[in-house]
Amino acid sequence: MRERTCALVVVGNEILSGKVQDTNAYFAASELRKAGVALERIAVVPDVLDAIANEVKHCAERFDVVITSGGVGPTHDDVTMEGVARAFGRKLTMDPELTRLIHEHFIDHVNTAAALKMAEVPEGAVLNHAGDRWFPTVQFQNVYILPGIPQIFEAKLLALMSRFAADPYYSHAIYVRANEGAIAHHLNSCLSRFPALLLGSYPKLNNPEYRVKLTLESKDRDYLERAFRDLIELLPKDAVVKTE
Amino acid sequence: MRERTCALVVVGNEILSGKVQDTNAYFAASELRKAGVALERIAVVPDVLDAIANEVKHCAERFDVVITSGGVGPTHDDVTMEGVARAFGRKLTMDPELTRLIHEHFIDHVNTAAALKMAEVPEGAVLNHAGDRWFPTVQFQNVYILPGIPQIFEAKLLALMSRFAADPYYSHAIYVRANEGAIAHHLNSCLSRFPALLLGSYPKLNNPEYRVKLTLESKDRDYLERAFRDLIELLPKDAVVKTE
Repeated sequence: MRERTCALVVVGNEILSGKVQDTNAYFAASELRKAGVALERIAVVPDVLDAIANEVKHCAERFDVVITSGGVGPTHDDVTMEGVARAFGRKLTMDPELTRLIHEHFIDHVNTAAALKMAEVPEGAVLNHAGDRWFPTVQFQNVYILPGIPQIFEAKLLALMSRFAADPYYSHAIYVRANEGAIAHHLNSCLSRFPALLLGSYPKLNNPEYRVKLTLESKDRDYLERAFRDLIELLPKDAVVKTE
Repeated sequence: MRERTCALVVVGNEILSGKVQDTNAYFAASELRKAGVALERIAVVPDVLDAIANEVKHCAERFDVVITSGGVGPTHDDVTMEGVARAFGRKLTMDPELTRLIHEHFIDHVNTAAALKMAEVPEGAVLNHAGDRWFPTVQFQNVYILPGIPQIFEAKLLALMSRFAADPYYSHAIYVRANEGAIAHHLNSCLSRFPALLLGSYPKLNNPEYRVKLTLESKDRDYLERAFRDLIELLPKDAVVKTE
């Protein structure tokens, strides 16, 4: 079974201070799941070098892939590159290809001078040209450094996704109208026989149709089907509203 | 100046797997900011004991207040209480008051038996009766353990907010139609004179009105006003669309 784990590090005071509602985490979570990648951690950290460096280092050591979002523009609060460099004990260096691209892209001198900050990458970084953007995605070891603007983050992530992809998850859902408390022992019983099942139980308030959505997932299709049948057998017939 | 720092730990496989878009983090970020509290970290971790324990321990040692969201129901995937207990090297114990409340609240035996899992708290925890919910909020030292269902999370957080409140932030915003690159040196110039200013620069794609929103914040109102005037003086007159 081909597995891949991932962590997402979102950099941005604007998110921590409630000025902006982050959408990149939800987008990444959904797309990674579709690609069979296990997103195991999301961290939102401020535009502070050590906060970024410590989180990136923590994640890079524990997960196959680390994606960062935000903090890569030309202004004072864009310190993600330096944070990633610090995480690995590297210096920033001017990348010749990014320097050339920035000179080509910006026509006036003031913009070019500031934008050249965006040519600074951790020593040893590589450039990924996937996707249709003029500016490639900077990668250092297993860390992919993406901008925070949702339209660009999304396009770049989708362009990279084929290289992250692992074996898919298979899933079922069961909607029940009983309380979680009334079915908890059935869930435990099913898990005792299928300990590797990814089983989620999510109550929904004020929903006329159902009270709890159960999700069952596995990368092993046969295992999933057997666990699904097992749980359906256990649940009271009149409690099951529908299955997917 | 009365300061208070905070971290939010969101527990839930459903968020990491993209099944549910978390809204509690944005709600908490906005409300904490209004109350003058500096939210300095958000982490989303899976329903895994060690992942919860390590993150809670990390945050509890570094921030004044830690809020957790999710993982407190009666089913197998509700392990936040045990995670918090482990973070502090404590055991879980049945709280007599929660036990009594659960017995009063649930009328049928099956639900009560499962719900009694929700009476388990880390040894030494205290109960907060703020708010209008029948079930109090469990607190262990500086960690407040809240449920993940948004309606309940929000009500409980608001009920607790008065005890977190610190001195307020004062803020201005400047909307400019120049590129970030064209104003970066003005931002740096202003920051060299007002290093304690919280200055954010947020580009907006495809907006007909402006290209960058600048946010200026401080807990010192006079300092903010002086920095605001300084930056307004620096920026090209025809670049400023509006101020707030």
